[in-house]
Amino acid sequence: MEEFNGVRCRGDAVESFVTSLIVGAGASEESAAAVARALTDASMRAVDTHGVRLTPHYLRGLTAGRIKKTPTVQVERLSPSVVHVDADDGLGHLASYRGIEAGIAAARENGIAAVAIGRSTHHGATGCYTLTAARQGFAALGMTNADAIVAPHDGVKAFFGTNPISFAVPACGGQQPLLLDMATSSIPLNRVLLRRDTGTPLPPEVAIDGVGEMTTDPFAAAALVPLGGANYGYKGAGLAVMVDMLCSAFTGMVHGARLPSFAGDNVTWPARLGHFFVIFDTNAFQPQQAFANRVVEFLTDLRSQPARPGEKVMAPGDPEWAALAERTANGLPIDAATWGSLGEYAKTYGCAMPDVIATTTV
Amino acid sequence: MEEFNGVRCRGDAVESFVTSLIVGAGASEESAAAVARALTDASMRAVDTHGVRLTPHYLRGLTAGRIKKTPTVQVERLSPSVVHVDADDGLGHLASYRGIEAGIAAARENGIAAVAIGRSTHHGATGCYTLTAARQGFAALGMTNADAIVAPHDGVKAFFGTNPISFAVPACGGQQPLLLDMATSSIPLNRVLLRRDTGTPLPPEVAIDGVGEMTTDPFAAAALVPLGGANYGYKGAGLAVMVDMLCSAFTGMVHGARLPSFAGDNVTWPARLGHFFVIFDTNAFQPQQAFANRVVEFLTDLRSQPARPGEKVMAPGDPEWAALAERTANGLPIDAATWGSLGEYAKTYGCAMPDVIATTTV
Repeated sequence: MEEFNGVRCRGDAVESFVTSLIVGAGASEESAAAVARALTDASMRAVDTHGVRLTPHYLRGLTAGRIKKTPTVQVERLSPSVVHVDADDGLGHLASYRGIEAGIAAARENGIAAVAIGRSTHHGATGCYTLTAARQGFAALGMTNADAIVAPHDGVKAFFGTNPISFAVPACGGQQPLLLDMATSSIPLNRVLLRRDTGTPLPPEVAIDGVGEMTTDPFAAAALVPLGGANYGYKGAGLAVMVDMLCSAFTGMVHGARLPSFAGDNVTWPARLGHFFVIFDTNAFQPQQAFANRVVEFLTDLRSQPARPGEKVMAPGDPEWAALAERTANGLPIDAATWGSLGEYAKTYGCAMPDVIATTTV
Repeated sequence: MEEFNGVRCRGDAVESFVTSLIVGAGASEESAAAVARALTDASMRAVDTHGVRLTPHYLRGLTAGRIKKTPTVQVERLSPSVVHVDADDGLGHLASYRGIEAGIAAARENGIAAVAIGRSTHHGATGCYTLTAARQGFAALGMTNADAIVAPHDGVKAFFGTNPISFAVPACGGQQPLLLDMATSSIPLNRVLLRRDTGTPLPPEVAIDGVGEMTTDPFAAAALVPLGGANYGYKGAGLAVMVDMLCSAFTGMVHGARLPSFAGDNVTWPARLGHFFVIFDTNAFQPQQAFANRVVEFLTDLRSQPARPGEKVMAPGDPEWAALAERTANGLPIDAATWGSLGEYAKTYGCAMPDVIATTTV
């Protein structure tokens, strides 16, 4: 989480607003609804890097031609437990939500299902989709590849995307799901850009310079380092390999290093990303109550572990559920720069801005 | 890889010898063959921590009663794509190999299959089983939980096992598979024990003392730290959570922190571990040749990446394939202490030792 100044609006008002902007750029209603749903969901859970602030990014992609405005998403069951989704170069959010629904249907029949999504574009936070499965009582594993910004272990230039892994398991009795959503690099590229803006050094062992030496200088950083740093980065790189394989060879796409860079202003060619999900019907593995008891036992035991002074042992997702409660009560914060940019787009497309219910520092 | 002095024997001779020792301890032929196969496979790939040196560990478990000598392993298809294996407290190696075969059969029919193994014991290196799937042309994801030796992020005492993740993808044209097999902690417990023996400090941010502070003193180390260390250990811990969930709630077992400690001399109660595999029939996702081309493209691109001076960018498994070639040519090295211990067991059970073809320093 980064700190920022801005405004707060009701989450549902933001979701409607983002939908209207995306439709304003010419996208189909279903495309717009999917991206607005994912961005609002991420922002409400304080995953601001993948939240509403990405709206202008998608608007640019739609108008420049990288993202198809009215894609024909094709969902095909290739075998009883394998779903392929052709995203038709449309917004990755639509293809991913469709894939999750088809994966749930296949998992309900067979116990487990894979969803391989090809010809897609950036889909925001992968956790939006595993969470959608968990909200329906299904566990899910999710991944996406991306263009190269993370170096291999002992390498000197970028080869992997940040290649996130997400995993969600439904809890019971009204408890929020267990939700992991992590890049396989230590930090995201946005952290480097932010540190350039603020002129502060990077943490150690998260980035290398142009000759492969670790650097804490955000201006010298030429590539990110896989999770594990100088000594154990081969593990983060190994996970990045797994994500890249499942999202390319299994989806029919090329691997991350062969994708064109998403940086820069040229957003005219399609991204051709792959996403990969595995959906688990937990009832196919263990009796419903026994499974629920195990999950609750685990979460209870983990959260009650003794912690370092001033800290608290948390389960994956716990910080997000705290943020969700706070933002549901007080509104979804939007940083000032994003708010300004969205205001410009609102003028262009003739969309009404959502009501501001507070100014805020997050 | 650790350095050691010892002897070298032919791999197949070692496998026969280990089989005879395990049978000598009263285990069934199929149990003995499975453990010998896994330990020899790991040793030949230089995964010595999980290789032949573990033989005495299993012999003790068999004679003390923790491991059932003649288990009735039950393999059940719970739904079209879900296999449950009840290991009946026998050697985890037997249950895991059986699970992989059943998982391959289910994946062949449905494209993907899950294998949840319960009531099991330590199964050696998880990579032995994903590799077995890859040798038959199937991709595989594998995990196992274990008793608590890794602290949660910001915690002060052990809660997770080293909870490894393995992933294998078959290559083509006679190339070795892509094979990842990594603990979700930075180092294994064995590294701490070794550093106590040698009196050398630990690397930074891999272990905590009894109050949760990072320590490099191997004698002060009370628990291991998840991959990612002080700043990013929540990611390694998140992966450990995923492994623990899939190996407990999905298999019917309790999570790692509720397992009795495997350390110490009391090996009379069953371990009750869980293992979890996902098997992928790659032909169900993409045409065979297209898939093979993607894998080769990826491996070729990755291995040709520019590296830091004196280093080489490698794919997961590459160091193991180099070791396999060397050990196939020169014999499987067994450290002197293990060799001595195996000699004692050979006398006890009346087993012939394998021929020594060289003395060695690895």
